[in-house]
Amino acid sequence: MHVGERFVSAPGKAILHGEHAVVHGKVALAVSLNLRTYLRLQGTASGQICIHLPNIDTFRAWDVAALQPLVSDRKAAGGRCGELDLELVERLRAFAGVAEGSTDSGNMAVLAFLYLYLSGFAGAQTLPSMSVRVWSELPTGAGLGSSAAYTVCLSAALLSARGTISSLLTQPQDTASWSEEELTLINKWAFQGEKIIHGNPSGVDNAVATWGGILRYHAGKITPLSRVPLLRILLTNTKVPRSTKLLVSGVKDKINKFPSIMVPVLESVDAVSRTCELTLREMATAGASAQQYDTLEELMDINQHHLSVMGVGHPALDTLCRLTLAHGLHSKLTGAGGGGCGITLLRPGIEALWLALLLALLRGASTTVGNGWGSPLAPNGANGLSETAQRVAQEAVWELREAGFECWETSIGGPGVLLHCATSLPQGVLDVLTSH
Amino acid sequence: MHVGERFVSAPGKAILHGEHAVVHGKVALAVSLNLRTYLRLQGTASGQICIHLPNIDTFRAWDVAALQPLVSDRKAAGGRCGELDLELVERLRAFAGVAEGSTDSGNMAVLAFLYLYLSGFAGAQTLPSMSVRVWSELPTGAGLGSSAAYTVCLSAALLSARGTISSLLTQPQDTASWSEEELTLINKWAFQGEKIIHGNPSGVDNAVATWGGILRYHAGKITPLSRVPLLRILLTNTKVPRSTKLLVSGVKDKINKFPSIMVPVLESVDAVSRTCELTLREMATAGASAQQYDTLEELMDINQHHLSVMGVGHPALDTLCRLTLAHGLHSKLTGAGGGGCGITLLRPGIEALWLALLLALLRGASTTVGNGWGSPLAPNGANGLSETAQRVAQEAVWELREAGFECWETSIGGPGVLLHCATSLPQGVLDVLTSH
Repeated sequence: MHVGERFVSAPGKAILHGEHAVVHGKVALAVSLNLRTYLRLQGTASGQICIHLPNIDTFRAWDVAALQPLVSDRKAAGGRCGELDLELVERLRAFAGVAEGSTDSGNMAVLAFLYLYLSGFAGAQTLPSMSVRVWSELPTGAGLGSSAAYTVCLSAALLSARGTISSLLTQPQDTASWSEEELTLINKWAFQGEKIIHGNPSGVDNAVATWGGILRYHAGKITPLSRVPLLRILLTNTKVPRSTKLLVSGVKDKINKFPSIMVPVLESVDAVSRTCELTLREMATAGASAQQYDTLEELMDINQHHLSVMGVGHPALDTLCRLTLAHGLHSKLTGAGGGGCGITLLRPGIEALWLALLLALLRGASTTVGNGWGSPLAPNGANGLSETAQRVAQEAVWELREAGFECWETSIGGPGVLLHCATSLPQGVLDVLTSH
Repeated sequence: MHVGERFVSAPGKAILHGEHAVVHGKVALAVSLNLRTYLRLQGTASGQICIHLPNIDTFRAWDVAALQPLVSDRKAAGGRCGELDLELVERLRAFAGVAEGSTDSGNMAVLAFLYLYLSGFAGAQTLPSMSVRVWSELPTGAGLGSSAAYTVCLSAALLSARGTISSLLTQPQDTASWSEEELTLINKWAFQGEKIIHGNPSGVDNAVATWGGILRYHAGKITPLSRVPLLRILLTNTKVPRSTKLLVSGVKDKINKFPSIMVPVLESVDAVSRTCELTLREMATAGASAQQYDTLEELMDINQHHLSVMGVGHPALDTLCRLTLAHGLHSKLTGAGGGGCGITLLRPGIEALWLALLLALLRGASTTVGNGWGSPLAPNGANGLSETAQRVAQEAVWELREAGFECWETSIGGPGVLLHCATSLPQGVLDVLTSH
């Protein structure tokens, strides 16, 4: 069986509101982060399967013949996806020489790859030779869903290579997504990969990487928002290391110490998430206004204070908020806090908002595309920002980098997993994926 | 009628917790601030009454004979205190040449003085000649109850001069307070003065200046806490001007805009005040521990974030919090916010806490004096701070002044209005009050 070349990508994830509160039964909003992970799958005649992960200096190759015995006595599973096959994981661990209890990201990524490859092709007569190369714009281990973007890419590419889901691109320069049913399958397989890497993931990260846009997460239930705007943001990594586990237990301790003070704070965070959801829905259906951006900024400020009250703030995050506020921009931590990453909302600028409104009126349509992912709310500039807004953003980025932070100008609410033509990829990405 | 010389003083006020929330029916804790206003009343044979307020460059004098007609047709009111006599206020306004609607602090202070003087001596055969000089450690118009400290001093001195309340000092170097009944009378008269100055005051400021210690204010009801610790603090004036009225209406607007978010925040502030009250009571009755200081610090941090959520924070207040936190000290705004003043809790230091505990055990008594005002929780140093704690405080004061703020090292929870012997006054204060 020979498989053709294909390129897929999937976005990272940020928590817009509700981090920590979600652990205590409150609503959280998870959004796709347009720092993407790109994968190239290339059929070969080498009799080998190779995985190449340059971000984490991992390169492994195996003879397909050596892998065959691991699946020969197994039932055909191609396209079906039940519970994680723990016995297969154990065999693969032994096969790949990964010690029990290892949490090394390279080892975990290799295990997930082998599992998805073998499960995906379990029903095939012979296992295909292939080379898989993955490169990500996302920093690893920063709470931005890099592992989910990876497993979603793997899952989409392998299912497509197997023919379980379609591989059609209608135009040479196009990118395409999959049907709802196919996305559901991609997500299920990716979730198995996430389980291998994380043990007990919530499923939010892979859902965001699969569907993109904005997801509401509440009491274990994940609901995509039907129409969402695309929002420009700065993503800042303070590079302050933290332990999510310790932060989560610290919040719990604080709730136990001051229940009468902290329970209302969690309620307030819940209301922040719900108000944000409502505002985003209005922006997507009726067009964005300066007032709605004001509201989004106010909600970010409020939640940042609430998170500090929960004890997951950090002086580096205060610096982020202060530096961006000096440019009129509003920030909050995203994810576990205690350092880590923060997001800063970029306003399109008044001129851009007016133009967007005008265009929407002329078109007699809303500013949102029909597939559920947002489109830029403003028409001017490649990134939807007015010139003034763009200058403000650039000055803020410069200062944040001066302060020792990593900073990206990107967007949230964009598309999930995509199938790409080579020519539709950014040149830099194509270079990394096709270099030898 | 000739009156003798007497010196009185009364403290300022700070809000420990519950500012703004109190407007919406939540609990607030008001505390005496040991920046005091001092008054010297001196009987003269000049046939004049003089008021001298060097802090606000106000010096006025009138012939007693010119004032007499204003009260000659009035019933004796000495020692009784009903509603504010608006007719008398109007007469005095005309007499003193204060324009209708003037809010100038000098004019208001003069009106309050004349009102309390005339009402106090209304039943006397002749009005006594006297010179009253008032000097305050409090900044004016900073929300620290300077007008209440002034009217409480006036009220106590005039009632004592009239003989309505006692004027006895048992020892040459002593200071003394008054009986509960006398304090109630002082407070009632002072409240009339506050009404002249402020129009519609809550009555909290004059109650704190009268009784000292800590008062709980809830739904219009003022309750003194029976036993409270004395806490060392830094009081910082950011000198950022603000309008209390605008800040209060801004909070209201925010509650109206985001009720589901803001109502729980007010509930949380209420719980902060109640938890603080409980902690202070424990500290006063069972001795202070490091854990209790931890709690007080946590409560300050939480409330500062809540106040920022209400929209009454300010970059200058953030600077205050950041600078002090760099020394391990915790701060919050006090009063209206939006600039204005902040308080920083000073911990006595571990050595000081241990010594205090030891002394308390040896005495077989609590560390609190019996009259309801706190005593320092630690025995070492004139201010109850250990050497290390004192050095930390001094460094913080230095940096805050470098940042352009005014900063005082003082205490909260100390005594209310006091009668002094001249020799018991700080020399600097005595110099100001007796200079010509």
